[in-house]
Amino acid sequence: MPNREQILAQWQAEESAVRARLAAPGVASLEQLKQYSGAEFLQRILNGELPVAPIAQTLDFTLIEAEPGRVVFQGTPDMRHYNPIGSVHGGYFCTLLDSALGCVVQSMLPKGSGYTTLELKVNLIRALTDKTGPVRAIGKVIQVGGRVGVAEANIVDVDGKIYAHATTTCLVFALS
Amino acid sequence: MPNREQILAQWQAEESAVRARLAAPGVASLEQLKQYSGAEFLQRILNGELPVAPIAQTLDFTLIEAEPGRVVFQGTPDMRHYNPIGSVHGGYFCTLLDSALGCVVQSMLPKGSGYTTLELKVNLIRALTDKTGPVRAIGKVIQVGGRVGVAEANIVDVDGKIYAHATTTCLVFALS
Amino acid sequence: MPNREQILAQWQAEESAVRARLAAPGVASLEQLKQYSGAEFLQRILNGELPVAPIAQTLDFTLIEAEPGRVVFQGTPDMRHYNPIGSVHGGYFCTLLDSALGCVVQSMLPKGSGYTTLELKVNLIRALTDKTGPVRAIGKVIQVGGRVGVAEANIVDVDGKIYAHATTTCLVFALS
Amino acid sequence: MPNREQILAQWQAEESAVRARLAAPGVASLEQLKQYSGAEFLQRILNGELPVAPIAQTLDFTLIEAEPGRVVFQGTPDMRHYNPIGSVHGGYFCTLLDSALGCVVQSMLPKGSGYTTLELKVNLIRALTDKTGPVRAIGKVIQVGGRVGVAEANIVDVDGKIYAHATTTCLVFALS
Repeated sequence: MPNREQILAQWQAEESAVRARLAAPGVASLEQLKQYSGAEFLQRILNGELPVAPIAQTLDFTLIEAEPGRVVFQGTPDMRHYNPIGSVHGGYFCTLLDSALGCVVQSMLPKGSGYTTLELKVNLIRALTDKTGPVRAIGKVIQVGGRVGVAEANIVDVDGKIYAHATTTCLVFALS
Repeated sequence: MPNREQILAQWQAEESAVRARLAAPGVASLEQLKQYSGAEFLQRILNGELPVAPIAQTLDFTLIEAEPGRVVFQGTPDMRHYNPIGSVHGGYFCTLLDSALGCVVQSMLPKGSGYTTLELKVNLIRALTDKTGPVRAIGKVIQVGGRVGVAEANIVDVDGKIYAHATTTCLVFALS
Repeated sequence: MPNREQILAQWQAEESAVRARLAAPGVASLEQLKQYSGAEFLQRILNGELPVAPIAQTLDFTLIEAEPGRVVFQGTPDMRHYNPIGSVHGGYFCTLLDSALGCVVQSMLPKGSGYTTLELKVNLIRALTDKTGPVRAIGKVIQVGGRVGVAEANIVDVDGKIYAHATTTCLVFALS
Repeated sequence: MPNREQILAQWQAEESAVRARLAAPGVASLEQLKQYSGAEFLQRILNGELPVAPIAQTLDFTLIEAEPGRVVFQGTPDMRHYNPIGSVHGGYFCTLLDSALGCVVQSMLPKGSGYTTLELKVNLIRALTDKTGPVRAIGKVIQVGGRVGVAEANIVDVDGKIYAHATTTCLVFALS
């Protein structure tokens, strides 16, 4: 088993390697969305061939892993993410979790299918602070079909401690 | 009934007036939290006597109204808030809604009580884009007692069109 | 303003009047579902022309009001609805609320449209007991469109005291 | 790997064995609640030393397994659980899931602690019918602390197919 320092070093190295490849923030065209399966679309973001989410730059987090059924985002909470009562704002948790939830549903979609998030529910379990270090939002599929996708996600730190849990319902449809 | 342009002008004027008074982003001390009722605490943010939420600066939105049982935040979604598939990221909705939900629970708390958000559930109803203009997240109380607070919030635009709805459960406790 | 006893007498009288008209429990045919708008379908249950929900008999509650955008169910919690730790089980709340939520979405649907509930979230606010007397689950629309319906519902007693709040997301589709 | 018929036979045998031991429906006293840890309390229901939930008799399902961090309920949906539009009512799903969610939080509580469910959110994934056969609601802990418990639960059939997923937030407190 790797220890805390080793996992931390690995997470930081993985983030650096991914960030070195990423393209500038932007929005993909409908043509690009229709050209790839969901997993390919996410892989092309990771490979720097498609733009990253503008909000990921604004809130300083990044997609770090994407395969069918598993998507991971990573960020390091700091003072810019705080509420005025002394810890990281729930909106930061939600943004990472919504990213992991939506993209893990997308990761299961065939070419020609799109999705939109209908709802998400987030349990905030522990406070995040500027001392927490990097955290990961890890999305997992519960069920994705031709009309609806349901997924869950956790936020964990390098110790595996859980900070939040979320579920989502997405609408799946044909891109046209 | 005021028309769309009049409401838009009013919302913009109210935002400008509030922003002119606000203090710099920061975190209140526990002493400051204990010194005021929830509604007074929020009023002092509006009056520039207490710091605004750092995340409000990062995502460019602001508290605009706070009285017991009614709290309003305002922001204007733009390209910085986008996901890569062409509209505003769910995390932006969640951040405004979590602000309105948490603060409207806080607005009901007597001096000496604090709160923390246990969970929120957000229904995304319409897409927000950089053409939408200013939107408001309006929080309303469902029930706030000595141990638990439940609240709801909407996001609406100047036409009263609804973009999202959310509910929250907060834990209420004595500050010590 | 009517007092508590008057409201109680009115609720009981309305329930008796409705129950006297209701048909036996059963399941409507697809042909019957396709024949009526959502509001007409619910009206025909109230008029005894279509069967009532079997679960409504099992848990002893009833539809009591249905018009486009407003649906009400009524029941009187008793010992049959209890959990082993001394109050009414959350499942009783959920059953009344799911009924009000689903049917209020249905009440907005044109002839030829069906719906299915994708998710519901229920806040339990106060305990129900066998002393509470009759309660109503009142459904209201948040937004119903051609593909998705979002609604909320409350459980209240004759004093207007709130016992639970819920929201739902429904999928809307063409019956075929 | 056991096949479908073997699992079905096992589930039925386990249900028969449990039902043969159960006590009559009823409500435990506060003294009984205070006398046992959460897991012991549930074990004593399974052993017929404490009453079963009245609602479990009303809706015909049963606790079938309870250990710290894992609780299972089993039922077989039939016509009594139907809505009028041709499948099992969402309230049946919610009742099984709320049982599994609440009891799995309870299963982690030390002697002297009680809990109450603040909210649950249920995703309905597939329809249940009177052809489905027995289903299990399986509760798992996400995080249980001294003030709050968060848990999730699934409904699955003998093939392992998932019908619903739910999460809950419970308040944990000292019994007094």
